[in-house]
Amino acid sequence: MSPKITTELLKQLRQVMKSPKYVQEPVQAYIVPSGDAHQSEYIAPCDCRRAFISGFDGSAGTAIVTEQHAAMWTDGRYFLQAAHQMDNNWTLMKMGLKDTPTQEDWLVSVLPEGSKVGVDPFIIPADQWKRMSKALRSAGHDLVPVKENLIDTIWTDCPQRPCKPLITLDPSYTGVSWRDKIVALRSKMAERKVLWFVVTALDEVAWLFNLRGSDVEYNPVFFAYAVIGMNTIRLFIDGDRMMDPAVREHLQLDSTLEPEFKIQVMPYGSILSELQAVGAGLSPKEKVWLSDKASYALTEAIPKAYRYLTPYTPICIAKAVKNASETEGMRRAHIKDAVALCELFNWLEKEVVPKGTVTEIIAADKAEEFRSQQKDFVELSFATISSTGPNGAIIHYKPVPETNRTLSVNEIYLLDSGAQYKDGTTDVTRTMHFGIPSAYEKECFTYVLKGHIAVSAAIFPNGTKGHLLDSFARSALWDCGLDYLHGTGHGVGSFLNVHEGPCGISYKTFADEPLEAGMIVSDEPGYYEDGSFGVRIENVVLVIPAETKYNFKNRGSLTFEPLTLVPIQTKMIDVNLLTQKECNWVNDYHQKCREVIGAELERQGRHEALRWLIQETEPLIRVQ
Amino acid sequence: MSPKITTELLKQLRQVMKSPKYVQEPVQAYIVPSGDAHQSEYIAPCDCRRAFISGFDGSAGTAIVTEQHAAMWTDGRYFLQAAHQMDNNWTLMKMGLKDTPTQEDWLVSVLPEGSKVGVDPFIIPADQWKRMSKALRSAGHDLVPVKENLIDTIWTDCPQRPCKPLITLDPSYTGVSWRDKIVALRSKMAERKVLWFVVTALDEVAWLFNLRGSDVEYNPVFFAYAVIGMNTIRLFIDGDRMMDPAVREHLQLDSTLEPEFKIQVMPYGSILSELQAVGAGLSPKEKVWLSDKASYALTEAIPKAYRYLTPYTPICIAKAVKNASETEGMRRAHIKDAVALCELFNWLEKEVVPKGTVTEIIAADKAEEFRSQQKDFVELSFATISSTGPNGAIIHYKPVPETNRTLSVNEIYLLDSGAQYKDGTTDVTRTMHFGIPSAYEKECFTYVLKGHIAVSAAIFPNGTKGHLLDSFARSALWDCGLDYLHGTGHGVGSFLNVHEGPCGISYKTFADEPLEAGMIVSDEPGYYEDGSFGVRIENVVLVIPAETKYNFKNRGSLTFEPLTLVPIQTKMIDVNLLTQKECNWVNDYHQKCREVIGAELERQGRHEALRWLIQETEPLIRVQ
Repeated sequence: MSPKITTELLKQLRQVMKSPKYVQEPVQAYIVPSGDAHQSEYIAPCDCRRAFISGFDGSAGTAIVTEQHAAMWTDGRYFLQAAHQMDNNWTLMKMGLKDTPTQEDWLVSVLPEGSKVGVDPFIIPADQWKRMSKALRSAGHDLVPVKENLIDTIWTDCPQRPCKPLITLDPSYTGVSWRDKIVALRSKMAERKVLWFVVTALDEVAWLFNLRGSDVEYNPVFFAYAVIGMNTIRLFIDGDRMMDPAVREHLQLDSTLEPEFKIQVMPYGSILSELQAVGAGLSPKEKVWLSDKASYALTEAIPKAYRYLTPYTPICIAKAVKNASETEGMRRAHIKDAVALCELFNWLEKEVVPKGTVTEIIAADKAEEFRSQQKDFVELSFATISSTGPNGAIIHYKPVPETNRTLSVNEIYLLDSGAQYKDGTTDVTRTMHFGIPSAYEKECFTYVLKGHIAVSAAIFPNGTKGHLLDSFARSALWDCGLDYLHGTGHGVGSFLNVHEGPCGISYKTFADEPLEAGMIVSDEPGYYEDGSFGVRIENVVLVIPAETKYNFKNRGSLTFEPLTLVPIQTKMIDVNLLTQKECNWVNDYHQKCREVIGAELERQGRHEALRWLIQETEPLIRVQ
Repeated sequence: MSPKITTELLKQLRQVMKSPKYVQEPVQAYIVPSGDAHQSEYIAPCDCRRAFISGFDGSAGTAIVTEQHAAMWTDGRYFLQAAHQMDNNWTLMKMGLKDTPTQEDWLVSVLPEGSKVGVDPFIIPADQWKRMSKALRSAGHDLVPVKENLIDTIWTDCPQRPCKPLITLDPSYTGVSWRDKIVALRSKMAERKVLWFVVTALDEVAWLFNLRGSDVEYNPVFFAYAVIGMNTIRLFIDGDRMMDPAVREHLQLDSTLEPEFKIQVMPYGSILSELQAVGAGLSPKEKVWLSDKASYALTEAIPKAYRYLTPYTPICIAKAVKNASETEGMRRAHIKDAVALCELFNWLEKEVVPKGTVTEIIAADKAEEFRSQQKDFVELSFATISSTGPNGAIIHYKPVPETNRTLSVNEIYLLDSGAQYKDGTTDVTRTMHFGIPSAYEKECFTYVLKGHIAVSAAIFPNGTKGHLLDSFARSALWDCGLDYLHGTGHGVGSFLNVHEGPCGISYKTFADEPLEAGMIVSDEPGYYEDGSFGVRIENVVLVIPAETKYNFKNRGSLTFEPLTLVPIQTKMIDVNLLTQKECNWVNDYHQKCREVIGAELERQGRHEALRWLIQETEPLIRVQ
């Protein structure tokens, strides 16, 4: 991977930063955040402004360009990738390391007195604006909104904003109709005494209306906003996709409905003016509910006294707790996904070992091919991380021709992949060796496995927040002086975004909501040896009630049930490092894989993959 | 313990809440925080306003009185105690439980529109003022400062503010002279570009000047503020204690000194006007550094643009990392403390079993007697928690005649106690049974012990925050559906407050600073069965570098070394619930107790206690 040459682009950007055509006064720094106007993590090509200006295309990162400097903040998952993708014009700011300055501190240290720092008010979340604006002001600088996005002014071949057809989901998938979701939302609004709720996150719009799209790769969402009143529903969406009879029928656009369920469809671009009109018409005590991560532009549309901001919206919280239909769908999706992976690993073992002809890209494509054979497959849920040897240490690696390595019997292979099925979203990582792993590789793998089991088998009281479980995943690694620089788990959507709030398992998040039965998260500790190999073991797990001897005096207990049912390579395990309990966990897990996935492989007539599954799920025996 | 009857007091308070003599406009609610003007956790009798108005005298709690209601917020340690001490006028708000409203939410729910909520601006920390003021304002109410403390107006027999003599500490105890501490502080101020630092916490004043006092019971501090400039030192302190020649010599008040080390002594009460004068004389860009927990009154003295607020002051952070002299002092203090406890437990076993004549109060007094025989003993470090049977479930119980139970062979006895020695501060909890514990009692004790060991033996990378270790202490309890409603550990001062920041081990604190070698915290998981018994096992532990196989790629590893060396009653342990590793930990710990404390008992000629120690430290044998 050679870095993007950005000298000319930065020169152009620095020119428009001073151009009266775009800015009232010159800005001495310009911030290019990662997200889009919906604060999405995954974004459409037209929104990849940070990647355009810097070359770095990981899922998280913020670029800041001043007259003299260009700097990129990203987290541990992307240190290597960003270093590879950016040229010498850029300084990499490694977030999470002790000596890395915050964006604010850095700006204060490099800016001349009384500087102006520009940012697109539609792209920056309100909470971030507030923090940054305060820090800059207290150092004598100003954060200013620049209406026209300055990257767009120099991005001559910027792609069009996508506007793809919609998929409707009936309650057999979603469990609840969109009308009932509106009713529940309005009751939450009444509880908090707010009159309006503004839906800004794309997955929240999709969830609320039981619609899916494909405007953003991997995330089945579509560009839209919604504003829900106690008696009105406004959906801001573009294109002729609202002419689709199935969509019209689904949303009952042509039916005679009680007025409070009548959906007014409005142009996507009219959200700001409509919201300003709502803001202007409010009486004292009337409140508008927004996420505190909604864009600064939309938040400013509502006068401060009328805003009701929360870190998690009622939709975000309701969406996280999967109902029975969604849980069953997730189970089905994970069974199909496991079938595809058994096929893949069986194929890899046959191809790789004798021939040495499979590259990371070929393996990733093959994984997609097997997945696409499964019922209700829609697309991948993220770019497949197919990485062998040293590439495995690049945490969010994606193989490209320049980096593409051939799988061999001498290197560890790490595959982190998943898919969107109409009934659920998957995300699974397996780390395999097709030859003979070294003792050190097995040792690291086994510590990671111990961490994975410690989380998966953890029992904890109702009301526990996920971040309190993060250290369980690290304890075995810590004992030997090893660690990994990423969180342990994230919420997973139901045929929605593969990363979703408000729960997760990470040392970094403290504002997470307590885990509840029905929530779905990933459990994915890892270990990465730069320049050598990566290990990660990831299952998607469902929060379920646990049975304990004393049950927290009826407060109730929770634990996890793995939805992912793909064998964990026993060849990589140093059995003597496992306790008997851990050994039993692996054997029970493999027994379940054999039963559930075995039956499905049988049903689909995939006999070779079934043989592979049987062989890979032989019980471990602990000799001690 | 019978509750305090507060009907008449509340009537009087509600009258002054409307009296033009004290308030410009009537206040519909009045907040009585726990602390004093220095936001101390332990306070002098004259500052016990919340206890005066409510009867509840635990170390943490906030009272709010409205025209109709009186409510008390406190945490899990105090639910039972508060319920016992308060009469029916009061509603107990159990913090940490899901359905308990915050103070702000509760106020909004009970207040009539446009209410004024009063509070003493010297007592409320600035960060709390800000949060509460914002929440109230957004609901149409106002938080207003009431200069005269309304409790003081009705507290006719309020005691005098204490003003006791000072103790000077030379560098053989503190490791660093006060001059060198001032130099280090000024270098931190220069780094942050601030011109003034305001020392508001009592333990920070004491630490900075290497002085100790006894104005507050258990905490060797004295009422004072300090304002440190780049060239000036102002100490605000009352009384003739500054006439003490030892103090004058220690502070070099009568020596010819470089002007920047000359201490100006000023009256305690002049801090506000002096600070206002500092605030008025500032030029643009000149900053004043304050804790964000300093009182609202002092914070307001500095115009907003000139304030530099941080959650932890540089003194707080420097004070937490003990130097070699302090660590050695802490070791000596803990050895003496263990001698006293061996004497006590030996005495208890002899008295309790045959005679049944020892009450909780007698046992507490005896513990103090044994401690006071040790060299450099100053006072206790907190009110001894001497509790048997059901009293043990009251987490911060203190025996009083009404609740005083007799120790017996049929109940668990929990003793949480500690002392201030001139060389260090101790805090230790042991849970004992003098008869035959039930299987359930042993089971609970053993889970608590497993949690204690999990923290004490934890290995973690440099830079880890203590709250990430909290779940380790709970895991064994959680597995069986048990938990405890308090944090696992707190920072411990060096002949200073037994609770100090900025580090700790608790699921509740996220703003804690990373653990560093030299920090000292407690490790004290517990289990409490309401109405039946309490179990807690507490050691004070020192953060030390750990040796690991891979050492986090030179990031470095940390672990804990117990400073407390008092046997853990093996009779209470169900050995079969321990792993071999845990069993070894107990045996190694007891071996160390035997060697270190045994030698000291021998030296002090305490042969009976030595025999008891030897008997209590017999190795466990695990039959499995």
